Amino acid sequence: MNAAGVPKLGPEPVGTYLRNTWYVAGWASDLGDEPQQRVFLEEPVALFRDGESKANAVSGRCPHRFAPLGQGKVVEGTLMCPYHGLRFDGTGACVHNPHPGGQLPENRLGVYPLVERHALLWIWMGEADKADPALIPDFSWLGDPKWEAVRGATVAEGHYELYSDNILDLSHANFVHPALVAAAFTEGDRKFWQDGETVHAEYIRLDDYLSEGIGGMLGRIGVKQDFYGWVVWHAPAVLYFDFRAGPPGTPREDCTLLPSLHAFTPETPDTTHYFWATARDFALGDAEFTAGMRAALEFAFEQEDMPLIRDSHRLMRGRDFWDLRPLILNGDGGGVRARRMLQRLIDRERQAQAAE
Amino acid sequence: MNAAGVPKLGPEPVGTYLRNTWYVAGWASDLGDEPQQRVFLEEPVALFRDGESKANAVSGRCPHRFAPLGQGKVVEGTLMCPYHGLRFDGTGACVHNPHPGGQLPENRLGVYPLVERHALLWIWMGEADKADPALIPDFSWLGDPKWEAVRGATVAEGHYELYSDNILDLSHANFVHPALVAAAFTEGDRKFWQDGETVHAEYIRLDDYLSEGIGGMLGRIGVKQDFYGWVVWHAPAVLYFDFRAGPPGTPREDCTLLPSLHAFTPETPDTTHYFWATARDFALGDAEFTAGMRAALEFAFEQEDMPLIRDSHRLMRGRDFWDLRPLILNGDGGGVRARRMLQRLIDRERQAQAAE
Amino acid sequence: MNAAGVPKLGPEPVGTYLRNTWYVAGWASDLGDEPQQRVFLEEPVALFRDGESKANAVSGRCPHRFAPLGQGKVVEGTLMCPYHGLRFDGTGACVHNPHPGGQLPENRLGVYPLVERHALLWIWMGEADKADPALIPDFSWLGDPKWEAVRGATVAEGHYELYSDNILDLSHANFVHPALVAAAFTEGDRKFWQDGETVHAEYIRLDDYLSEGIGGMLGRIGVKQDFYGWVVWHAPAVLYFDFRAGPPGTPREDCTLLPSLHAFTPETPDTTHYFWATARDFALGDAEFTAGMRAALEFAFEQEDMPLIRDSHRLMRGRDFWDLRPLILNGDGGGVRARRMLQRLIDRERQAQAAE
Repeated sequence: MNAAGVPKLGPEPVGTYLRNTWYVAGWASDLGDEPQQRVFLEEPVALFRDGESKANAVSGRCPHRFAPLGQGKVVEGTLMCPYHGLRFDGTGACVHNPHPGGQLPENRLGVYPLVERHALLWIWMGEADKADPALIPDFSWLGDPKWEAVRGATVAEGHYELYSDNILDLSHANFVHPALVAAAFTEGDRKFWQDGETVHAEYIRLDDYLSEGIGGMLGRIGVKQDFYGWVVWHAPAVLYFDFRAGPPGTPREDCTLLPSLHAFTPETPDTTHYFWATARDFALGDAEFTAGMRAALEFAFEQEDMPLIRDSHRLMRGRDFWDLRPLILNGDGGGVRARRMLQRLIDRERQAQAAE
Repeated sequence: MNAAGVPKLGPEPVGTYLRNTWYVAGWASDLGDEPQQRVFLEEPVALFRDGESKANAVSGRCPHRFAPLGQGKVVEGTLMCPYHGLRFDGTGACVHNPHPGGQLPENRLGVYPLVERHALLWIWMGEADKADPALIPDFSWLGDPKWEAVRGATVAEGHYELYSDNILDLSHANFVHPALVAAAFTEGDRKFWQDGETVHAEYIRLDDYLSEGIGGMLGRIGVKQDFYGWVVWHAPAVLYFDFRAGPPGTPREDCTLLPSLHAFTPETPDTTHYFWATARDFALGDAEFTAGMRAALEFAFEQEDMPLIRDSHRLMRGRDFWDLRPLILNGDGGGVRARRMLQRLIDRERQAQAAE
Repeated sequence: MNAAGVPKLGPEPVGTYLRNTWYVAGWASDLGDEPQQRVFLEEPVALFRDGESKANAVSGRCPHRFAPLGQGKVVEGTLMCPYHGLRFDGTGACVHNPHPGGQLPENRLGVYPLVERHALLWIWMGEADKADPALIPDFSWLGDPKWEAVRGATVAEGHYELYSDNILDLSHANFVHPALVAAAFTEGDRKFWQDGETVHAEYIRLDDYLSEGIGGMLGRIGVKQDFYGWVVWHAPAVLYFDFRAGPPGTPREDCTLLPSLHAFTPETPDTTHYFWATARDFALGDAEFTAGMRAALEFAFEQEDMPLIRDSHRLMRGRDFWDLRPLILNGDGGGVRARRMLQRLIDRERQAQAAE
């Protein structure tokens, strides 16, 4: 953390975000004894585990001297400021002042509801009393030992909606990830729909060849397959990608499944936390297989997607997506629905706040 | 390209540029099968060769998802977007949509007149119907096999006019390039004049020693020479430098000539594409000589000029050159004329646009 | 200097600084035959030694082409511009123009009073006629051969007041420099007071263990000591730190003294020149001891303090310190007094200027 440090922030957040929703704050197992300093939605946040190993999220700026609390230490289950040693608990209360007198300040840190579920930490950046864990999308396979996942967590340059658009429009994969994905997702049938507040994209290709990458992973190079890609978008930018393949004619539910998570949490208007995972239910414990799978996916997401989206973001020159009057292709059916839904949800939230 | 990526750009171009003129877009031979992504005058531009190997310049931002088209591929003579595979021809028309249905969008990319001449690509960033190739300055020696050139292409920090000033005022060379240039250009006679829309600077030194650098290149260390430096500036910032040396009394036209190009194309108000070349008509094909010559010039331009001009630019703090009330020395006769001429040309162009 | 170059500056200085005061401009012995280019209080400054080895400070921007004069050379006791060879003396007058005609421009460089004292260069960024060297704080031990000092000079990210606060509040050391400082400065008695325009902080701990770091340096690990920390702040950000330790009951004046300087000179609102030194009067000439002491202190200041203060600075998001309503702990008694005093001095200076 210290090398690059806290990102530079403006005097106030400038982006407009959906707040009453669950964002991914990190991989649960990445948060151990050391706290973490993060910026979500342009707000500094410190993550730490208390004495019961419960993960907590509090303001990442000490009220005393503005130090990054998440660069401190956990001491006796409390978060100790790295600068002058004040300690805070998960309710944001200062519980220890090591200085003479030792009076405890009444100021409390801001606290963010944080839930550990499906191997992930989910954070609620809005009104705490609305933070219902039942609203967390179901990624139970991430926590299921039947599935072995490779995964990543990085900070990507570019607006988070560009990243969720990217997953909803699998047709990019043929061009951006030639080794990983065959032409099929460009050429096959597509369907986009909305279901409540989720948006769905489906890509089906029957009786065609897999790519070297996926075909190799499945041991099915040179044999035709039916394959299915199904993406589910949850506002604001948490996506499930369900990829299945099997011999032609295999019922879809009997095809081999590779489930994926792609979760994007805005750090600033120009940078995005990117959490991804893809799992398999075969070759479990095969370290070589795992390493190859991780390398292939990491390359695809971090070396192929990210630079391209970064540059597309820069070419938008800080302007609004719709003001730039993008050409709409039929692969955009998912992204456009998701953008409109997100805008509706943000508008609704702002109207509700204005009404209060 | 991907490592650093597209430079960061403001919502709109903020500089004021001469548009109806030819800028150097690159070395013709550097544009091969791979397209190039560039920014000129704060506008993204993609360069590519079509099926007839003709070089084309189109908008470097895909109208679909704003991807950098110049990071794509050339397929069947058309420019394929790296993101979703739309293909555009040199007229800016979308000629292939690989997605189901395959309807071709009617939007056209912006197109910039591009001419390949004198081993360079020349781009016209203004009104296309005014793009007369006859206006391209004569650098025919760059394409003449009688001359062997070393050359470079880089992006330099600093306003482009600071870079053209630098070439017009050869008196800097004695201080900035001590190994390459003798005191002669500081101490000798100078003359500056204007001829139509070109500006000329001449430096003559008779019967004096060359520097180690130039003297070594010419095999004339320790012998006195007459030498002549003549710079011709073409708006906005394309310069020819004609250096000649010979035994005292040699007619100027019989002296050994080292012709140079220094062409500057603004990328942003703070960065400049710098294209340079110096040629000789002796030691042709001598790879060792070529390597030494390249190293000496590259060091001079990229390690000596560029950091100094970068820092001078930063010390201007974004303020207007004339507002800073620069002290004028007699070596500035070229730069001042060029700045005034460029301002007149820009004003004239803006008045013409306002009148239309 | 050339690698990173001149820092980027806005059109005009944006910070508000105390001007009629002495700032540390550098270590006297670091200014040799080569001039130095610096930015103090957002103004470019060139430092150089003239023919009598007297250190001078003049504007660091050539009036001709805005080149960084401090990147030039000293020639015959004058500062030669790296770009076109104009030479300036310590009065700011141009004394040599190497170009034909050689007329000397009448423009003078701005000149800053500069005094070499206590092994340091002290610069006055305000009205020259008020620059009284008697106002320079007494750091005579830095120039006294009885004392052997290790020292540093670096540019640190963060506002300079955050850096002076850091020294005044020694209670941070226990948390930020665990190897160097024992818990004593957090737990012991503290006293803060003001004396004229200086601010004092005192930390006393009797009969306790030194840290591994200081105890090791003094050869007193595992034996209890009385120890005393006394910090004196001189506006705007020049601090003396007097650390003493001795066997319990030793009169304070007989304890072993390690005197330190911490001097901060604003470069920009976001960056600070940091000059530090700590001296000893034992193990003189012991190179190994010196190297260990330097490494320990450099690590503490540059690897422990600086990243933390940088991130605290970023978390302030460019906002005013008091507007952020910092929680005040009792260790802040020094910093708060110093901030208030500095504000009074700045206000007084501005009122005086307004009255003139």
